[in-house]
Amino acid sequence: MPGVFITFEGGEGAGKSTQAQLLEVHLRAAGHDVVRTREPGGTPGAEALRDFVLFGGHDLSLRAEVMVHFAARCDHVDRLIRPALARGKIVICDRFVDSTLAYQGYGLGQGDPQIVDLIQALGTRMGVVPDMTFVLSLPRARARARLAARGQRSDRYEAADEAFHTRVADGFDAIARAAPGRCLPISADRPADAVAHDIAARVDACLAARAATDPGPA
Amino acid sequence: MPGVFITFEGGEGAGKSTQAQLLEVHLRAAGHDVVRTREPGGTPGAEALRDFVLFGGHDLSLRAEVMVHFAARCDHVDRLIRPALARGKIVICDRFVDSTLAYQGYGLGQGDPQIVDLIQALGTRMGVVPDMTFVLSLPRARARARLAARGQRSDRYEAADEAFHTRVADGFDAIARAAPGRCLPISADRPADAVAHDIAARVDACLAARAATDPGPA
Repeated sequence: MPGVFITFEGGEGAGKSTQAQLLEVHLRAAGHDVVRTREPGGTPGAEALRDFVLFGGHDLSLRAEVMVHFAARCDHVDRLIRPALARGKIVICDRFVDSTLAYQGYGLGQGDPQIVDLIQALGTRMGVVPDMTFVLSLPRARARARLAARGQRSDRYEAADEAFHTRVADGFDAIARAAPGRCLPISADRPADAVAHDIAARVDACLAARAATDPGPA
Repeated sequence: MPGVFITFEGGEGAGKSTQAQLLEVHLRAAGHDVVRTREPGGTPGAEALRDFVLFGGHDLSLRAEVMVHFAARCDHVDRLIRPALARGKIVICDRFVDSTLAYQGYGLGQGDPQIVDLIQALGTRMGVVPDMTFVLSLPRARARARLAARGQRSDRYEAADEAFHTRVADGFDAIARAAPGRCLPISADRPADAVAHDIAARVDACLAARAATDPGPA
């Protein structure tokens, strides 16, 4: 049985990392072999590119920024995600192509068709497509309150204006609507364990369906 | 009249930088407005990516390395090359897409069809295509002697084995044969002024042909 690729998407403060972690615990308890990772980053080379683009202070054109994100993603896919899936593991990834589309395409690019088209074209070249994508949504005021409670320093996105965050949220909505078979919208405006329960139920159902149709080793 | 985009390609030691500089001098003397630049690099962001990929010591997958080169190229095209061409300038660039195809596609990638296809697909997305590409060739023994005489420290490519350099040279030959309208093969195994004379004659002829067909400002 080939592996299963599950991604978490959504704006800052929606609880993606928490939910990815809770899903990992749930799946490990059921005996599954799980790799949990994140983007941008996930491998040493991709983490170096993450630092370059998020914290390096370099002023790149938007196209160039998109390309750097995909460079990091290529290393992540080639060195970690694809090999893990080939060995039959469940890979849980915090952000993937959809985040580049939401943040660079809709947020920074304001839906510029050339940037959106570039991201979609590069996305189809990654060689892996998520089996399931949980798109977590949270009203922006609640997200702001959660981020403030965490007390982390603002990164470039958190410090952006509200119109930017609205475009990103609308982008995630559009992405989820365009791929209803892959994307599962999840309201994150609930206690974490309630959200985790929903996600675990969806994943368990998917794994049971795959096991029922899997012919097993030849 | 839109600008003219001229690129120089070929292995190390073939004299690309010298010829680019001599062409700039020749064109300026004739009253042309010239921008001379180089890859990887050419803008602050692209130079930072050049340092990352050539001297950062990061171990990236080959696909990721290709993407970093194109990230730098996007910044270079968006911030310098395309604006200069739009203002009618002659842009002379030391290396462009063909170098990525020769070094990453044929040299490191050994002609892997997936890598070659990725580079060609990204190349068509840059938004600019050279009007003329001079592909300088030099027997490897002569190139080695020139590099030794320069006394520069070896970079990752110069230190590579001879089979790598043969693949790169064969790659440049294949690229030139595949685009005979754009690529002009030039033997660099001659004094620099003789090579420069040939190149200047080709460029002057091209500019004269363009001027003859240009309707001028409306």
